[in-house]
Amino acid sequence: MATVARRERALDLTERFEAVRGLSRALAAPLSDADATLQPMPDASPAKWHLAHTTWFFETFVLRDFVAGYRPHDERWAYLFNSYYEGEGERHDRARRGMLSRPSLDEVLGWRRAVDDAVLGAIDTLAPPALGLLELGLHHEQQHQELMLMDMKAAFFENPLRPAIWEAEASRPVRVPDGPRWTIDEPGLVEIGHAGADFAFDSETPRHKTYVGRFALADRPVTNADWIAFIADGGYGDPLLWLSDGWAWAARETIGAPLYWIAEDGGWSRFGLDGVRPIDPAAPVCHISYYEADAYARWAGARLPTEAEWEHHGARCDPASGHQLDSAGPVAPRPAPDGPGLHDLVGNVWEWTQSAFLPYPGFTPAEGTVGEYNGKFMSGQMVLRGGCCATPRGHLRATYRNFFYPHQRWMFSGLRLAKDA
Amino acid sequence: MATVARRERALDLTERFEAVRGLSRALAAPLSDADATLQPMPDASPAKWHLAHTTWFFETFVLRDFVAGYRPHDERWAYLFNSYYEGEGERHDRARRGMLSRPSLDEVLGWRRAVDDAVLGAIDTLAPPALGLLELGLHHEQQHQELMLMDMKAAFFENPLRPAIWEAEASRPVRVPDGPRWTIDEPGLVEIGHAGADFAFDSETPRHKTYVGRFALADRPVTNADWIAFIADGGYGDPLLWLSDGWAWAARETIGAPLYWIAEDGGWSRFGLDGVRPIDPAAPVCHISYYEADAYARWAGARLPTEAEWEHHGARCDPASGHQLDSAGPVAPRPAPDGPGLHDLVGNVWEWTQSAFLPYPGFTPAEGTVGEYNGKFMSGQMVLRGGCCATPRGHLRATYRNFFYPHQRWMFSGLRLAKDA
Amino acid sequence: MATVARRERALDLTERFEAVRGLSRALAAPLSDADATLQPMPDASPAKWHLAHTTWFFETFVLRDFVAGYRPHDERWAYLFNSYYEGEGERHDRARRGMLSRPSLDEVLGWRRAVDDAVLGAIDTLAPPALGLLELGLHHEQQHQELMLMDMKAAFFENPLRPAIWEAEASRPVRVPDGPRWTIDEPGLVEIGHAGADFAFDSETPRHKTYVGRFALADRPVTNADWIAFIADGGYGDPLLWLSDGWAWAARETIGAPLYWIAEDGGWSRFGLDGVRPIDPAAPVCHISYYEADAYARWAGARLPTEAEWEHHGARCDPASGHQLDSAGPVAPRPAPDGPGLHDLVGNVWEWTQSAFLPYPGFTPAEGTVGEYNGKFMSGQMVLRGGCCATPRGHLRATYRNFFYPHQRWMFSGLRLAKDA
Amino acid sequence: MATVARRERALDLTERFEAVRGLSRALAAPLSDADATLQPMPDASPAKWHLAHTTWFFETFVLRDFVAGYRPHDERWAYLFNSYYEGEGERHDRARRGMLSRPSLDEVLGWRRAVDDAVLGAIDTLAPPALGLLELGLHHEQQHQELMLMDMKAAFFENPLRPAIWEAEASRPVRVPDGPRWTIDEPGLVEIGHAGADFAFDSETPRHKTYVGRFALADRPVTNADWIAFIADGGYGDPLLWLSDGWAWAARETIGAPLYWIAEDGGWSRFGLDGVRPIDPAAPVCHISYYEADAYARWAGARLPTEAEWEHHGARCDPASGHQLDSAGPVAPRPAPDGPGLHDLVGNVWEWTQSAFLPYPGFTPAEGTVGEYNGKFMSGQMVLRGGCCATPRGHLRATYRNFFYPHQRWMFSGLRLAKDA
Repeated sequence: MATVARRERALDLTERFEAVRGLSRALAAPLSDADATLQPMPDASPAKWHLAHTTWFFETFVLRDFVAGYRPHDERWAYLFNSYYEGEGERHDRARRGMLSRPSLDEVLGWRRAVDDAVLGAIDTLAPPALGLLELGLHHEQQHQELMLMDMKAAFFENPLRPAIWEAEASRPVRVPDGPRWTIDEPGLVEIGHAGADFAFDSETPRHKTYVGRFALADRPVTNADWIAFIADGGYGDPLLWLSDGWAWAARETIGAPLYWIAEDGGWSRFGLDGVRPIDPAAPVCHISYYEADAYARWAGARLPTEAEWEHHGARCDPASGHQLDSAGPVAPRPAPDGPGLHDLVGNVWEWTQSAFLPYPGFTPAEGTVGEYNGKFMSGQMVLRGGCCATPRGHLRATYRNFFYPHQRWMFSGLRLAKDA
Repeated sequence: MATVARRERALDLTERFEAVRGLSRALAAPLSDADATLQPMPDASPAKWHLAHTTWFFETFVLRDFVAGYRPHDERWAYLFNSYYEGEGERHDRARRGMLSRPSLDEVLGWRRAVDDAVLGAIDTLAPPALGLLELGLHHEQQHQELMLMDMKAAFFENPLRPAIWEAEASRPVRVPDGPRWTIDEPGLVEIGHAGADFAFDSETPRHKTYVGRFALADRPVTNADWIAFIADGGYGDPLLWLSDGWAWAARETIGAPLYWIAEDGGWSRFGLDGVRPIDPAAPVCHISYYEADAYARWAGARLPTEAEWEHHGARCDPASGHQLDSAGPVAPRPAPDGPGLHDLVGNVWEWTQSAFLPYPGFTPAEGTVGEYNGKFMSGQMVLRGGCCATPRGHLRATYRNFFYPHQRWMFSGLRLAKDA
Repeated sequence: MATVARRERALDLTERFEAVRGLSRALAAPLSDADATLQPMPDASPAKWHLAHTTWFFETFVLRDFVAGYRPHDERWAYLFNSYYEGEGERHDRARRGMLSRPSLDEVLGWRRAVDDAVLGAIDTLAPPALGLLELGLHHEQQHQELMLMDMKAAFFENPLRPAIWEAEASRPVRVPDGPRWTIDEPGLVEIGHAGADFAFDSETPRHKTYVGRFALADRPVTNADWIAFIADGGYGDPLLWLSDGWAWAARETIGAPLYWIAEDGGWSRFGLDGVRPIDPAAPVCHISYYEADAYARWAGARLPTEAEWEHHGARCDPASGHQLDSAGPVAPRPAPDGPGLHDLVGNVWEWTQSAFLPYPGFTPAEGTVGEYNGKFMSGQMVLRGGCCATPRGHLRATYRNFFYPHQRWMFSGLRLAKDA
Repeated sequence: MATVARRERALDLTERFEAVRGLSRALAAPLSDADATLQPMPDASPAKWHLAHTTWFFETFVLRDFVAGYRPHDERWAYLFNSYYEGEGERHDRARRGMLSRPSLDEVLGWRRAVDDAVLGAIDTLAPPALGLLELGLHHEQQHQELMLMDMKAAFFENPLRPAIWEAEASRPVRVPDGPRWTIDEPGLVEIGHAGADFAFDSETPRHKTYVGRFALADRPVTNADWIAFIADGGYGDPLLWLSDGWAWAARETIGAPLYWIAEDGGWSRFGLDGVRPIDPAAPVCHISYYEADAYARWAGARLPTEAEWEHHGARCDPASGHQLDSAGPVAPRPAPDGPGLHDLVGNVWEWTQSAFLPYPGFTPAEGTVGEYNGKFMSGQMVLRGGCCATPRGHLRATYRNFFYPHQRWMFSGLRLAKDA
């Protein structure tokens, strides 16, 4: 790489590094030490843990491995804040992350400052592989910013006082849209997946051909009003609508509404980052499992799109569009606009697809420790597409494959209908 | 349908009905009443339950629905022997099927005779829809024949005396084949899935186009000798080889070898329908989970095939070939032949693919109660192809999609390697 | 021991051996091979297991240890039918006893015949220690006869067809007794526990002094009519009546009536060895846990007796009185007689006491393997007194201490009220 | 009650109230907000919860019920900080107490100040029943002070960094005492239990006669050196030493040493409120379960004392003696003194007895909500006697009955041997 290009890249990375690291701090700003220590369930992590783990990533894969003479801020912390990198040795039990009152939030923020200073001091001298890992670290931290918002919401929901993390203005009522309009696509070979030098996770590669039949895609995500109709029609009580695993899950967990919905006074409210608010009927339904999404689609005489169908359309959207996360605050899905065209494919709610998270044809995992990254999760999970209101703007790509187990729903997950046409 | 054609179809079905029903009886012949009542785990059912459930299918969907004046043999038994048809009302808890000492094996065999007589007496007068259900019932019973063998093996394995169900002659030693030879295929659009009037399960339809890249397929399944090398190389102990869920599963269940393998005197034996025998190194490895298959493939620098890749080759094989089940006895995988060509794609061990069991493009579930059949299982399971030594000959098709959860391994499951080429 | 005395003892033991062993066979007579193999829960064992385990006891502790040249009927069976004697080596997992379809019921009965013949052939030559173990084996087998009845009832209750094991005549209605009459006792030192040369379990010894205050004891066990009043008054729904552990247990297990009670047509029936029958209001309530007994007593303004209080009265009763088991059949608690006096202290239902099963002062466990017998169960269990309709007549003593965990209720357990006076 | 006497009582209670409430604050002083929010297991509660719950007690049973016009500090908090008083309505799930980051530690301390001011302002005007509840509240808070220390220790032990809560000086080595000397007591009737007007929990009453046989009691608690010998002799591996439930517990939980013991460099260290330190061989063993205590006693050819035996001697000790809690700090058991006499019956480690926690003869629970206090725990637990280094001095009585389940060991529990003599 020419010197000039490298300097430009360093400058660009400096700016992005400061922005990304600053946003994490801002997300944690309303939290007390105790708030930041809570772990509401094994799937979720304390906010403090996210702040520390993302810092550990830079300290380990950039500073330790590429900056001569760097000494870790506290060598006992790697054990605590490694997440799942088997190649990096033993680590603290994931389900017990909520037991770490020490180091304190202040100590973790101090670690962040020290690592930030060290990275920014070294950035001009880093070789391209180190810069690549720095960039990976930024994408990694953006992922964790979304997880932080998900996990903070889940943690505060555990408190019977239902405290708000941020205050929000009441939303203005919006007309609930009519039944979806359908965009029809002709069959043919398409290409999906990432190609080129820009950053992407390994699971998005390689770009490859796939055949897509004739299909129709709804112009908007399913709304809360739609979902209330599904509930009213007994959708949660009819086994013929449900996958077998989903029916068992709903019975075991006594599921009868999306996560965070609260039945009050004959209507529905929902808990959010801004506390308890009435349901907005025009907004996309959110915090539903794959099982629920699939049952709804069957009830509606439709189905979920495949990820190829989704990407075929999503590739034409600006990946930085929509209501994505720009600054700390009580993000929530918002009503999609009215009018012709496909609305909010990007940046409102993650849309469940009917595709399992599996390797693309020709997939090769990245080498070495960071290569554990995505391949090892390729069983039992389903793909979601399109980013959401909690996704940091700039993090998304049209080829981005998010994935969760079919019963999970603490992420900002919704759905858009598709059908054979 | 012309009368002659219908009569011919009835004649053909009569013959097949007698053969299929007879094979089930033969499979149960070595079992005592107590043997036939055992349920070794919730996934498995007692042999008596299989004999009864398949009978319930004919009594309910053929005799009750199409034969005027038919009265059920014992109307209390539907509750006991319905399996998962939500549309047919409540049913006995699956995990408690082993509690049914009554009706006895003799009573169930008496029920079978009564239903057989009623079906055979009515077959000439049945309308085409009833004949369609009769045919479905035969395929259904064949599925349960394989399950019976799986479940009987699992049940007898629970007994520390390790009794044999059938005696078998010692197998003659066979040369262990060398490392696999690879068959390479050029990329292109292929068609997979079932078309035409012949019977197939709904999940095999519709036939559809899919794009397959350049790939190589091994000429034979992975052998026991291969697997012993994997164990010896520490394959079960290296987390970098394993899917995250698989690693957790293996730790939780302390998995270090295929199911039914027994470490004895420094070597390996295996339990089978013929009791405990030494491992045959040349035979295909069997009773492995998807997690194990996937880890092995990674260790071998290869991967599992997709179901499209498998079917592309499998479609050229005779689906009635291989070591499939012809008569009751201690079936077990056998060494594949040597020499050029793809060996034993069909009828030795089920081969794990890397495809999730999901609806084909354009999939429409069958209508009504029997339409619950396959669609409801389309989450969390992986596809296996090719049939096995316990599959009744005549049951298989090249388009046949078997499916299990990634941790399951009491079926006759093995693997064949593929790789990008 | 003088020769004459020993011969007399051998004659007596011969007679009792034949009677006891014969009763076990009679209890199993209505069972099929499959019936005898069922294990409805880990606490219970298959009937076949009881038949085999009691035989293993004689084969091991009498024949193996005292009869020169005796060779075990099948040396692999000790592993299967040892129960909890750690000193006797490894044994089959208790929770998997229901997996033993082999050996069959017929084979186990054959083993019984062989062991019976060997014991009866040797009995005249056995030294006193061997005769002592033979006697212990008879008491042990009588215990298992009661367990067999309990476990058979539990096993058949699992079958939705609710089959009867024995037919029974309908019971004639009896007048429901009025509220209990109280017998008052003055305070003082009493002696309880076993003394003398007759057989008793180690936990009944030594006889010792204990101080008992002034108290009143009810003349009869609590009846089903009493219990129905408790239910009607919301007894199962008032947390202030319940022990904390009991309240949690009842919530977790959704307990609202005694075990085997079935709400039908606005009334109560119960399942028994004779199938489903209407509740007899005059009969003692049965199949209740300690938690339920304790809650009932609190509701009634009373308490449970201590075992010293119970034995103080019980010592004056004929331990062979009451409705104890004389021959195989559908035993069930029966209405207590009317009139003055303490009724049915012995031989109707086991009566929960408020005493924990703990060592008596000066307790010394028996030496050696059979010394594991009772001492090791001295934690977490409560004492029941008085025998029941399923206790073989001749097995009971006034000093007999039965014990179960407070949540268990598949034994024939009831209660009698006491109070401070 | 005469006015003067009441005033004196109020003065006395004022002083004790200030002392007790101050000690709780001091115990929490080293804790951060996050430290005080941790719940390491369902049995334990966050320190903040203890601070709040004891405050709720005074606010509810004194201020709300007896001070006209008192308005709760925050009416939403009763739901959070009620513990188990069913009569006081619904309450927050015990196992989720660690989810309450709000109210913060500072807010709870503010609540404490407000309630303290209100109580101290009203104390002169409170009627005797209110003063009785105030006194109960002080005993209740002292109980929670000991629980706080137990729970803080458990919480910090979860942190792999093993932080110290308080620094402590290294202890000076002390000569390990020889095998115990025995004090022998002649048999006879004794009286145990509380009588008189002084405060005691209901479970300590009534005072009653009980008969005690001839027995010997060891002069000191079992030491760490004794315990190391037990471990070295294979005590944890010999099933014949263990209660059946204890053996299963130890296998399931892989128990091989007291809680908080850490095997390091061939020796033993232990975690404490002062972090990780070497084991002091002369100090009493601590943090053992009943199962372990019972197994040790059997190994030593002895047994545990009954509570009557213990109290017979304990009644002659000053209940305020020993190493009890005087001020906040890293309390730990200390070596007992040498020389003749019974040492440290009081105030070093709680001593397991072989008595179950059951009602004394004539026991009547207190009326009303606070009467739920102890009676509801009378099943499944064993009594411990004598107080410990974490018991606030002034809280103990010779009649004091502490109780825990046989598997629990996060309290400061040890043992003293007894035997029949």
